[in-house]
Amino acid sequence: MKKERATIHDISKALGIDSSTVSRALNDSPRVSQKTKGLIIKKAKELGYQRNSLASNLRTNKTHTIAVVIPRISRYFFSTVIAGIEETAHEAGYNVLICQSLDSIDREKKIMSTLISNRVDGIIISISMETTDYKHLEAYQSLEKPIIFFDRPCFLKNCSNITIDNVHASFMATEHLISQGCTRIAHLSGSQKIELYRQRQKGYMAALKKHNLEANAKHIFESGLSEEDGMASAKKILELKGIDGVVSANDTAAISAMKYFKTQGVKVPEDIAVVGFNNDPISAIIEPSLTTIHQPAFEIGKMASRTLLEQMTDNLKEQQISSTLLDSELIIRSSSQKK
Amino acid sequence: MKKERATIHDISKALGIDSSTVSRALNDSPRVSQKTKGLIIKKAKELGYQRNSLASNLRTNKTHTIAVVIPRISRYFFSTVIAGIEETAHEAGYNVLICQSLDSIDREKKIMSTLISNRVDGIIISISMETTDYKHLEAYQSLEKPIIFFDRPCFLKNCSNITIDNVHASFMATEHLISQGCTRIAHLSGSQKIELYRQRQKGYMAALKKHNLEANAKHIFESGLSEEDGMASAKKILELKGIDGVVSANDTAAISAMKYFKTQGVKVPEDIAVVGFNNDPISAIIEPSLTTIHQPAFEIGKMASRTLLEQMTDNLKEQQISSTLLDSELIIRSSSQKK
Repeated sequence: MKKERATIHDISKALGIDSSTVSRALNDSPRVSQKTKGLIIKKAKELGYQRNSLASNLRTNKTHTIAVVIPRISRYFFSTVIAGIEETAHEAGYNVLICQSLDSIDREKKIMSTLISNRVDGIIISISMETTDYKHLEAYQSLEKPIIFFDRPCFLKNCSNITIDNVHASFMATEHLISQGCTRIAHLSGSQKIELYRQRQKGYMAALKKHNLEANAKHIFESGLSEEDGMASAKKILELKGIDGVVSANDTAAISAMKYFKTQGVKVPEDIAVVGFNNDPISAIIEPSLTTIHQPAFEIGKMASRTLLEQMTDNLKEQQISSTLLDSELIIRSSSQKK
Repeated sequence: MKKERATIHDISKALGIDSSTVSRALNDSPRVSQKTKGLIIKKAKELGYQRNSLASNLRTNKTHTIAVVIPRISRYFFSTVIAGIEETAHEAGYNVLICQSLDSIDREKKIMSTLISNRVDGIIISISMETTDYKHLEAYQSLEKPIIFFDRPCFLKNCSNITIDNVHASFMATEHLISQGCTRIAHLSGSQKIELYRQRQKGYMAALKKHNLEANAKHIFESGLSEEDGMASAKKILELKGIDGVVSANDTAAISAMKYFKTQGVKVPEDIAVVGFNNDPISAIIEPSLTTIHQPAFEIGKMASRTLLEQMTDNLKEQQISSTLLDSELIIRSSSQKK
């Protein structure tokens, strides 16, 4: 078998310098004198070692640490994804640093610069609600280290996304309400600057269209989907009159809307049926229990970690960058069952 | 008392410059002019401040990053403490890295060595359930960087603890059950290797003693306080027969014990009254709602962060290391009200 290119051992042999010194010199270690470095780099070029040097640098320069950047650790979905990420990363001997952006682009930028200083080997991220430009992510990418996106898709070049099919999930949720007899369905949506919420809104619209129901911009309530947002949207929904179903892009807003309906004497599901998104543990416990979309959070985490580890060990430029869609499930509980 | 060596305050007095400016100058802060720095450094040498230069060097070598090490991010108490830590740290221009030990000493050791490599400026930690020796923490401390303990007290030399008075809180919880007529009260306890759970057990015992009730080792169930543990303990409690109250060292075990009682037709609070610990959000939502101890988690986080920042900027050796006890509160709900 013909050797395609020179290795560290070839340089070592040619110069009679031990291979660990060669390796250190190619990594610009202060432990090797400038003179020796000069010799080694010259020989490396001669032998055609050139092409691999960058990858080699990166690989030997490992910290065996990866980072997870998420909006909030307090959300069940995110802490479960992290459990999956850690299980796979720990098995492979990697430590995991966790940072929360609190859905702020400024914070996310500061986090990225900290992670660059800390030389983490790879990043798994669910971007903040405010993240619409990606310069801070590209800065990390330019170090030829991989970034994996999950939950909130991000179409940065050469990056993998691990998500569920949000259009389909939201379509299922909406169609379920239609099957229960709802005809005027409102949507609690997140910012349309975020691909995730665009997709969930798209699924809602598609279900209405399929069943020849009116799609009315006034029935869509865009917000940060916090508790306060859910309550404010619920108030507006009651002012509209005639709404008989609500599809929310998360459980937090759905539950707080249900609570508000209760205070106003509006019955769920009889007057207004409600479906959430995420299957937070609380959704099974509140009264009435909340119909919602279950995402395989632990699996998403494991898949994100596995993909990241693969991209860290392979040559980034040589590999196939692909996105993965995992299955989600509609969990039908009391909040939506009119029949 | 003879002073062994000069302090920042001696330099401050000798020059008539306030001590925070002296401290900044010695830390090579850009906020102090070169001229003033020169004066201060000269005086410092004169007075023999020399010996501390190592600590000082380390201090100028700041990464403006602190780390929080906790057992699990998914617990409401910990994510709320982190919110408090981050609020204070961000205001001061610090980034926060979060690591979870999953209650494993091995993982905690790996985390500590990662944080040492990453040269974080300080650490706030709630130690793992398995942590009974502190070498990995002392290794960090030997870099003259501060560690603050919260929630689970740890008596490492020169370290501050930010906790509630766990003995008192547990005493309140137990005395409340006694006031409701309970006379045979079981205790779901954590590992007695952990100071936190020793304290909570101590409070339970003290309340029994005060009211002349039998303290029986068979009524104490030591475990990891997980959901499974809570269920297993509940099973043993019913086998004992005659237990009419349960004081649990966390909500997780308390709630899972209540669920088990329900499956066995045992009524809460009529047959067995239950008190938890932590005031997890779920404790207000389950049926019957759970009486529990509320800890000021957000305040604990802010206080921990503030104390850490102080210890990072001052000379560690010169300051008073003190522990802080914050107030807790008994939240009385349905699970304990027999009367």
